[in-house]
Parts: sequence; C-alpha cells; structure tokens
Amino acid sequence: MYNIAILGASGYTGAELIRLIAGHSSMQIKALGGNSKAGQAMADVFPHLRHLDLPKLVTIDDIDFSQIDLCFCALPHKTSQEVIAKLPGDLKIVDLSADFRLRDPEAYEKWYGNPHSALAQQGEAVYGLTEFYREEIKGARLVAGTGCNAATGQLALRPLIAAGLIDLDEIILDLKCAVSGAGRSLKENLLHAELSEGYHAYAVGGTHRHLGEFDQEFSAVAGRPVKVQFTPHLVPANRGILATCYVKGDAQAIHAELQKTYADEPFVEVLPLGEAPSTRHIRGSNFCHVGVVQDRIAGRAIVVAALDNLTKGSSGQALQNANLMLGIAETEGLMMAPLFP
Amino acid sequence: MYNIAILGASGYTGAELIRLIAGHSSMQIKALGGNSKAGQAMADVFPHLRHLDLPKLVTIDDIDFSQIDLCFCALPHKTSQEVIAKLPGDLKIVDLSADFRLRDPEAYEKWYGNPHSALAQQGEAVYGLTEFYREEIKGARLVAGTGCNAATGQLALRPLIAAGLIDLDEIILDLKCAVSGAGRSLKENLLHAELSEGYHAYAVGGTHRHLGEFDQEFSAVAGRPVKVQFTPHLVPANRGILATCYVKGDAQAIHAELQKTYADEPFVEVLPLGEAPSTRHIRGSNFCHVGVVQDRIAGRAIVVAALDNLTKGSSGQALQNANLMLGIAETEGLMMAPLFP
Amino acid sequence: MYNIAILGASGYTGAELIRLIAGHSSMQIKALGGNSKAGQAMADVFPHLRHLDLPKLVTIDDIDFSQIDLCFCALPHKTSQEVIAKLPGDLKIVDLSADFRLRDPEAYEKWYGNPHSALAQQGEAVYGLTEFYREEIKGARLVAGTGCNAATGQLALRPLIAAGLIDLDEIILDLKCAVSGAGRSLKENLLHAELSEGYHAYAVGGTHRHLGEFDQEFSAVAGRPVKVQFTPHLVPANRGILATCYVKGDAQAIHAELQKTYADEPFVEVLPLGEAPSTRHIRGSNFCHVGVVQDRIAGRAIVVAALDNLTKGSSGQALQNANLMLGIAETEGLMMAPLFP
Amino acid sequence: MYNIAILGASGYTGAELIRLIAGHSSMQIKALGGNSKAGQAMADVFPHLRHLDLPKLVTIDDIDFSQIDLCFCALPHKTSQEVIAKLPGDLKIVDLSADFRLRDPEAYEKWYGNPHSALAQQGEAVYGLTEFYREEIKGARLVAGTGCNAATGQLALRPLIAAGLIDLDEIILDLKCAVSGAGRSLKENLLHAELSEGYHAYAVGGTHRHLGEFDQEFSAVAGRPVKVQFTPHLVPANRGILATCYVKGDAQAIHAELQKTYADEPFVEVLPLGEAPSTRHIRGSNFCHVGVVQDRIAGRAIVVAALDNLTKGSSGQALQNANLMLGIAETEGLMMAPLFP
Repeated sequence: MYNIAILGASGYTGAELIRLIAGHSSMQIKALGGNSKAGQAMADVFPHLRHLDLPKLVTIDDIDFSQIDLCFCALPHKTSQEVIAKLPGDLKIVDLSADFRLRDPEAYEKWYGNPHSALAQQGEAVYGLTEFYREEIKGARLVAGTGCNAATGQLALRPLIAAGLIDLDEIILDLKCAVSGAGRSLKENLLHAELSEGYHAYAVGGTHRHLGEFDQEFSAVAGRPVKVQFTPHLVPANRGILATCYVKGDAQAIHAELQKTYADEPFVEVLPLGEAPSTRHIRGSNFCHVGVVQDRIAGRAIVVAALDNLTKGSSGQALQNANLMLGIAETEGLMMAPLFP
Repeated sequence: MYNIAILGASGYTGAELIRLIAGHSSMQIKALGGNSKAGQAMADVFPHLRHLDLPKLVTIDDIDFSQIDLCFCALPHKTSQEVIAKLPGDLKIVDLSADFRLRDPEAYEKWYGNPHSALAQQGEAVYGLTEFYREEIKGARLVAGTGCNAATGQLALRPLIAAGLIDLDEIILDLKCAVSGAGRSLKENLLHAELSEGYHAYAVGGTHRHLGEFDQEFSAVAGRPVKVQFTPHLVPANRGILATCYVKGDAQAIHAELQKTYADEPFVEVLPLGEAPSTRHIRGSNFCHVGVVQDRIAGRAIVVAALDNLTKGSSGQALQNANLMLGIAETEGLMMAPLFP
Repeated sequence: MYNIAILGASGYTGAELIRLIAGHSSMQIKALGGNSKAGQAMADVFPHLRHLDLPKLVTIDDIDFSQIDLCFCALPHKTSQEVIAKLPGDLKIVDLSADFRLRDPEAYEKWYGNPHSALAQQGEAVYGLTEFYREEIKGARLVAGTGCNAATGQLALRPLIAAGLIDLDEIILDLKCAVSGAGRSLKENLLHAELSEGYHAYAVGGTHRHLGEFDQEFSAVAGRPVKVQFTPHLVPANRGILATCYVKGDAQAIHAELQKTYADEPFVEVLPLGEAPSTRHIRGSNFCHVGVVQDRIAGRAIVVAALDNLTKGSSGQALQNANLMLGIAETEGLMMAPLFP
Repeated sequence: MYNIAILGASGYTGAELIRLIAGHSSMQIKALGGNSKAGQAMADVFPHLRHLDLPKLVTIDDIDFSQIDLCFCALPHKTSQEVIAKLPGDLKIVDLSADFRLRDPEAYEKWYGNPHSALAQQGEAVYGLTEFYREEIKGARLVAGTGCNAATGQLALRPLIAAGLIDLDEIILDLKCAVSGAGRSLKENLLHAELSEGYHAYAVGGTHRHLGEFDQEFSAVAGRPVKVQFTPHLVPANRGILATCYVKGDAQAIHAELQKTYADEPFVEVLPLGEAPSTRHIRGSNFCHVGVVQDRIAGRAIVVAALDNLTKGSSGQALQNANLMLGIAETEGLMMAPLFP
C-alpha cells in the first residue's frame, strides 16, 4: 500500500484525485494539504466525499513527507513551484499545475508573466502526456501534468505531425471547454447565472497559455517551429473538452495513423472513420475519444477529440502517471465507465 | 464469476447496470436483451460504453438462460411481467419495473390500469428496499426493485413511522426529481428546449403511481392505514431525487432514530442535526444522504433525503440486491464516490 | 417623459429595470448609480444592453436628483436605508431592497440583524404588493418592493387567508427558487460548477428572512398571528420561483376565490382547476400563474404559483408600482410575452 | 392594423412569431394554422402565451386568406412549398422554411433530396437576409427566410468577401448552435438527459444543408465559386448561435469594413477591435454582435458573430422583412432588449 499526499485538496482537481484514489487498490491517502482551509474536514469542503475516511486538511508544513511515497500537487501555478522547491529532493511528485510543463524558462516567463523560481526541479521534470512519454515517466521523480486543453489537442494531432501527414502551417484548433476547467475560484463570469444558457470564445487570437505547450511539443515532434491557431470557447457544462481540429491532409491516412498509434492504448479510442465524438460519452472517465472526418473540400480533414478535463485532462492523467512511477499497473483505479446521462 | 443477463439494456437503467457491473469483480455480462434494437452493438446504442467488450443486443428469445446465474429485467412495466412469466422458474431475477412492487393485485390494477398477468411470480416477489428487506432478499428468487421516489421517501420516513415518532396523518412529501427518471422515451416535455431553465409540479394531488408503494409499505410498518401527501416536481438536472418531508414530531428524536437505524448501513449517511443534503453530492453513486432540521414551529420537523435515481434509486439498488441473492459482499461494485462537479 | 434614476444599476435587478424601461413609452433613464463600478459604461458591465444609449455609471453623490421624477433603488439592504435617508424628501422612490418591507422596526432588526437607521422613511413606506396595495401605492412617495419569495407565496395564499378558506395553523410553503435571486455576488455555491446538475433546500426550518414578510402580511390579513412553514430550495435555472403550497381547505372554494380575486388583474392568471403552472411559461415576463389541485386526501389542496423572480418578483413589480405612482397606465412597459424556450 | 396569419404555429418559430407580434403596434394575429394540433387553444400548445387573446389553431384549409395581409409560413421544408403553391398568388408571404432559399432548383434537390415542386414561386422569391436584400424585400411578394446558421455566417463574412479582404479559399466556419434550432421534433438526441452536460460536432465534413446557402451567396458576392468549411456543434443551451470564423486577411481592415457596412444597421453591433461576443448577450433579441480579433499569426484573423437562432436567425428576421414588405418601420416590434441572465 503506497502512502499518498495531495496538496491543494480543496480544489476540483484535488477532489477528483480523491475520488479516483478512493477506488484504487494499492494507494491510501495519508495527508491532505490545503492552507486556506486547514483544520477543516473534507466532508465540509466536499460533502460528496463524506462517506470516505479521510484525514483532515492541514497546512503543507504540517505534513510529514517522510511517510509519503508519492505526492500530488494540485496547487495554483507559481505557488506550486515555490512549494515543490522545498519538498524533499527524493519525494516522487506529480504536479498538476502549469509550473513544470515548459522546459525553457524563457517560454515559462513569457506565458506566465513571472520568472521561474525552481529551475533545478524544472530541469528534471518530465512532461506528463502519458501516451508519448511513458518510458521517461516510469523513471521520473517529478512529472508535470499537461494542460487539459494541451492534452486534448496533442492526442488529436501529435501522431499526424510526427508522421508528416498534415500541413504544419495550417493547423486550427477550435476548442470547447467546460466550466470546471476554470477551477473553483470566485469570478463573476463563472457564476451560474452568468454562464448557463450562453457561450463565447475567450483568449481569442493566440493568447491562451496552453499555446506554450503546443508550441514546445509540436515543434519538438516536427523538428522545426510549429505554431497553431487555437481558440478556446467556454460552454455551459461542467466537464469536458472538445477539440475540433482543422487540418490539411488525407483523412484516410490520418485515420489509419491514429488507429496505429493508439491500437494498444487503454484510454484512447479511435472511432470509425467518419464519426465524431461527444463529451457526454467520456464524462467522469479517463477515456479520450478521437474521430476523423474527410471534408467536402479535397485534402482537408477534421479531427475531433473529446476528454474529461478533470479526469484524462488532469487528475486521471496524474494518477495514470503516478501508477507508472510506482510500478503499478497503469490502468489501476482508472477503468470506471463514463457517467451517462 | 457469475453470468449476468440484462433485459432492456437500451434504456437508462440498463446502461447504468452495465456501468456498475463493468467494475464488479465477480460478475460478467453474458447477454443483453433489447428487442427494439436487437442486432445493434452497445457502442452504437450507448457510445459511452464503447470501451467495454460487451455482447451485442439480442431479442429475449435468443438468450440461453441456462447459462445465466442472474437476470436483471429493466423493461417497461406490463412488458416485464409478461416476459418474467415465461423465464425459467428457477432463474434468479431482479426486476426494475413496477410490476412486482405491489403485493395486492387489486392495488396493482388500481395504480397501473391493467390486471396483473403473472400472479404466481407476484406472489413470490420480495420488495427490494434493501435496508429493510435484507434477509428476505438473500433468500429470494425474484426481487422487485422499488420506485425511485418510493425509495427516497421510505429511507427518510420508514424508521420514524416504525418508531411511532411522527403524526401518521400529517405527512407531506414534496419531491424534486431529475429528468432521467422519466427514461429515454420520446416525449415533448422531456426535450431539452422544453425542460431546461424551467420546473413544475406534476401528478399533483396524489395521482403518482409510487403512492401505491408508500401506501403499502407505510401502512404495513404502522400496522394501520397511512396515506401521505406526495407531490413530485421535475427539475432541470439529469440525476437526483430530493425528498423534502414535512412531519410533526420531535426533530431530535427523529434524528436520533435515523442515526440508530442507519448506523451500520454502508450506503445511508445521516447528516448532523440541522444540516440538509444536496443531490449534487450523491450523483453517480449508491449513497443516500438524509438530514433533519427542526422547524421554527415547535413539534414540527423537516426530513430531507437525497439519492441518485438511476443508482440507489434503481440500478444500484438492483445490484445491491443481486449481490445479496448471490452471496456476494453487498457493497461489491457499488462503492464508487459521487461525481462532483 | 419622466426622468428616471436607478441606483445599484450593476446588479441583476438594476439590469432588469433597464431592460424593461428601454421598452417604456414615457420613461427615460437619466442617471445610473453604482458606486463600485462608477465611471464604467453599461455596455462593459452588461454587454446585453450595448445597443441602448445609456448614461455612464456614476456615484450616487454625482446624481442631480432635482432632475429626477422617480428613483429606483436596487441596492443591498442596509445600504439602501442609508442612501434613501439622504435623498430629497420629496423624491418618489421605489426601493427593491428589504429595508422598508417590515413595518415594525423590531421585526426588521430580528430578521436582518441590525437596527433600522431610517425610521422616518420606514414610517411612510408602502408595501409594494401591487394587487393588494394598489390605492396606497398610487399616493405613496416611497414604495418598498416585496421579497420575490414573499410575493409568490402571497399571491397564492393571501386571498385564501382573507376569505377564511384555509386552516391558518397548517400552511406549508415549499419554494423552488432559481439562481438569479441570489444576485451577482461572488459566492462559491453560486458557481456554475457547484450549482448546475444539483439542487438542495436552504434556510430550512424557518430561518429565511422573507418569513418576516409572511408573518407581517398574513397576520394582518387574518387579524391574528399566522406562522407558516417555509422551505426554499435552490434549483439549477436562472429565473423563476415556484411555490408549492400545502393547505387544508376545499379546493373548489379556493379556486373560485382566486379566480374572483384576480379576475381583473392584468398579470395574475388563474389556471383551470386541476392544472399546475411551470416557471418556464412566465420566464422574462411580469405574469404570475396560479393553479389549484385537490389532493386525494379530502379537505386538502395544493396551490402552486409561478413567477419570474427578476420581473414580477422584483423589477417588474417595481415598474408596475412606479407606473401607479406617476399616474401612468399600470401595465405600461410590462406586457411582453414570456421567453420560451 | 394589418391582419396576419401564421402557418405552423405549434412549432418554436411559430411561437416566437406570436411573442414578437404580440408587442407589435400595427399587426394583429387573425389566423393560426397547425394541422396536427388543429382545434386546440394556443394556451394548451404553448402555455406561455396564455395571457394573449389568440385565435384557435385551425387547419390551413380553414383559413380565409382574403382577410389576411401577410402570411408567415413556419412549416417544415417540402411541406412549405406544397402549401405555398396553393395559397393566393397575391398574398404576401414570409417563408421560414428552407424551400425558397436556393435559387437553383438543382442545388435545392442536391441539398434537400427531393425535386422542387413550386418552381414558379421559387422564381419570384427574394432571399431574406435583410441587411443585404433590403430593397428587393421591400418590393417582394414572397421572401425566403435564411437558415439561422447561414444568417450568422453571412453577417460575419459577406462584407469581407465583397470587399476582397480575405482569402476566399481558406474560410473556416466553426459554429456552435443551441438546441431550439433543431425544433420541437421528438428525437432521442434532443432529450434533456441526452443533451445537457455534453456537446459534439455534427454534419461534420461539409454535409450540413445550410452550405447550399453559403455556396450560393458567397459565390454570388465574390463573382466566382467560393466553398467554405463549415462544422456545426450542438451545445446545451436553448437559444443562440456563435460562429467562429477563421480567415486570412488583415484584422484591422476587416474590422473597419464591418464597422462601415453596419454603421447604420439597427440590429448589427460591431464590437471594438479585439473583443468577441457571447450568445448570452443577445438572447431573446433581434441583435447580432460581431467581433474581430487579430491572431498571433500575422495575416490571420478570427471573426466571431453571435445571434439568437429563433429571433434574428428566423422569426425576428421574418418580422423585420414583413415590416419592410408592409411599409412599416423596419424595427417595429423588434427593439426589445436581450434577456439576461
């Protein structure tokens, strides 16, 4: 039985980690850190976890990390790097923040607005997109969870860029994101009365921070700079990301490549050619559904990927990586079916 | 490994059974019956189950029941009794329809409008409210799943009636039901555009069929006729039932009695006195949360119960009962945490 | 053309007033007060009002009230009384806060927790339930808009209490309220991810402040103390209040009384006996639908009322009263049909 | 006072027409046709219209068209052309179906699957995109309402194509459509339990029928064939279309051209450069908001348009055109502010 700590347990990704680990056969939650709500019982912070026998929230300083086999950090970016810099140097960590996703400190500063303060840890961090960094993750001490949008877009496009199947200068990602991706923070535009029954594009024009990940990863795969167009939209649903990717390439070849890439992957399902996925069919699960459709204009295809931002997009991915780091079966605790309706 | 058949697998309760059994350690799905969609793959009927290796839908006549250890019937009422009357007489069955809930054939005909056509089976059926019929269910061949509203109201009120703590002539149940309880049938008032952003009372005045169950069970517990007032409301959410029960009695005694009754129950959580539950904290789980609050008017209390109509209200309850009938641990496959948000 | 000022124009009731007045033939908005957002254009605060030619938000001190014929105060309670105490003594005011609803200063302090600081104004305020205070409102200088829940419950029950048709000691109001009633304030439980897909009872047991109004008004009508049970529930929709009232009395007599009372009312529609209303059919309008159903238990009836909390429940009611105070046709600017779907 | 008939009054666009005309100063509804619900009162078909004094639904054959000044046809396509072919040849008609949108009968047959059966009427029909066909509409007898998606895309792109500001071979329209656009028909995928909390792309790859309109109109404007990529998505909201258009061209020039084109338009609002609209800010109104943002990749821009599919996208547009045809002020009955929240 591995002892687990979760820092930032009062947010949505923290709660999602607890939900998943509650059904895990070889992990037990030993410590829950949450400075602002330290002292509270989890049943008060998240009444849906009332049935579980969980430790109280404590400050991070009050956690004895010598008892911990692996620590999930579900803290806000910037806070995360400061905290992780002070944790024991041999503690296995899966970070869910943005702090260790970008390998280049300058890129980090450009997208996040502050210089990185944990360069040593940044140097050793492995990018957590499991399907493409599996071997590195197995041996890693610190894994950086991907952005949820970045995961969706990469699962759709990475194999196509690697195989040279699409025009690298003509990639458009139109994303539709659910609300929980914005977290539990108190913002006027996240109120039910503001958000429900309407939808809009945000960070239009290439200003969303997850572009840092797309740039880094797609360029590395292609072996030359790749810049995509990326427009996220906020839709009135709680969970889900749908990435509609417009590419120039042959739909059949694209579909075949995705099928080949994901043939043995437990969590990525490639739909039959011509079908497109829906977020409602992966809600609450660690699955990603990918579809490919030929456009009526020859030489163009639409690739659509759907996943749950809180599961495959963050906490499920984090657990998948933790399983690898601890030598547990990769799918342990993650095979639950989606919740529909 | 027990071999399971599910009849009526193309409806919501059928899909929910598959979701739950997919995570069950000692059941495997051997046959899926659904006459109207026979021949189709489950991935086409319910794409969220795409990752599972499931048998195709077949007609009920095409199922070899000699291979089946237990059969769930998730068929519409009236159809269910006709089908079950023809199934092998020694086959263990959990029925999710309304057909075997009422012990009195006249009561059945009064509430459902047609004479009962499977009186022999009706005679042997055990009422499936696990917490109160556990021993009978263990030995039963045929268990009748309760109505989802009926389960919610009984979990709130049964112990209070049994203990003589409330005025039996002054019980009001104001229920708020989510949409999936109405099933997957094509009705104008179930369309998204009709239903979302609005809510209303229906079957007002005591015409809802689940009153047949309340009358039967509450009268049996009380040892004299008990008639409650019961008004269900349809609210724009997919899962959940919230029963707000207005009773005359002492709140502290009521709370103590509920705590005592459910102390060892794995799925019923009694909240601290003065707190009321929310459907959002049990969604997708088999838990029922019950709260008690003292009214400002002396001698009156409000008891509120919340559960997920598709899980604890039907398919989860059905699996809980099936576990008992097969001698499996009662909680097997049912301990997943709720999905929030 | 009457010159109108709105204080608190950056909240939902303020925006709703602007929406309604924009279609009013003899009112023009001259000043918009909102201290926290002073200096901003309304198109930035409420982009849905972008097409209107509106004054900028200013601080209340910057408004020249000598130019104003009538002022709507849509400020938070407590703030409202402080502001109104300083406004010109001859300015016509419709207040939408809770500050002038309760005639007894002790009752105010009991329910709102602070002593009243504008007793002179409180003394002259007229309670704004138009259908029952029409003549007083016509001559009033200061009208106190009712609570939105209080309006709904009174429209259902007041005529029955006045006519002595129901048991005064056995009245239960189970209310279902939409989200916008809680305003635009930043509270965790109002976030879309927290609220959608779930519902719950709050202020259970008789602690909701609108009980102060029910107590005051029902007791006055009855000529003796009347205390109702009142449990509000928060449901995932933006607009609407549904009051399900359980009473002891004769359904036919109740229905006849309601029909008689509201026969000439432009905004209250009594449904045929046996029908119950839905919030979806009054959304965005100033209408209130009321239905009566006989329970299966003799001598009991259910009265259900539905209205839009932002319109008939607050801003629409406020405009209806302002029309009366200015000698304009009562229905002016208020006859728009509900928005469905 | 003009006498109005509405055929197909039991669908959403029919109800929306009634809502709008109810507030119109010089139109009165004389006849409501709806064959399947003939004989019913509108209060039963659409309870939100209960307060209006409306004629009963009758069969189309029972309408005396000699009394009618203008007829709105809100019938399904194919039915519409059959009905209109038999109406008096001098009756002014605004058709909301797809039947008269495409000028080329072959294009009609290609997209709709059946040969056109009212070629004479098709020949005289004027395309109803008011902002670009205003003069023709004024003199028309028969106006063909546009597709709701087609209206949104054209309001965003038409001026740019006309001005030669964008690359005609690289236009991508990613649309997000609300549910009411699919009408009131009973389809499994339109049920609340299926649709809410999820979203997906449909008609992917260029198979949506509104492409017929885009092809016809954009090619006519450009003076050479133009084919766009167009992918609609269904999102869980009742009203609204958001068109995210990816184009190659200069954002500033694009913005300036849109501002110039719509400077005097009463219903099209161009947002400041760099801002993008939201469907929540036009709900229930006849307004269209258009925004332009420069992408981080030089020479690329995103144009986003938002409108309400039932109002500006169909029934509001229809009334706008009817006003022109009858010589009434174009904005009459259409200036109501959006409903928010």
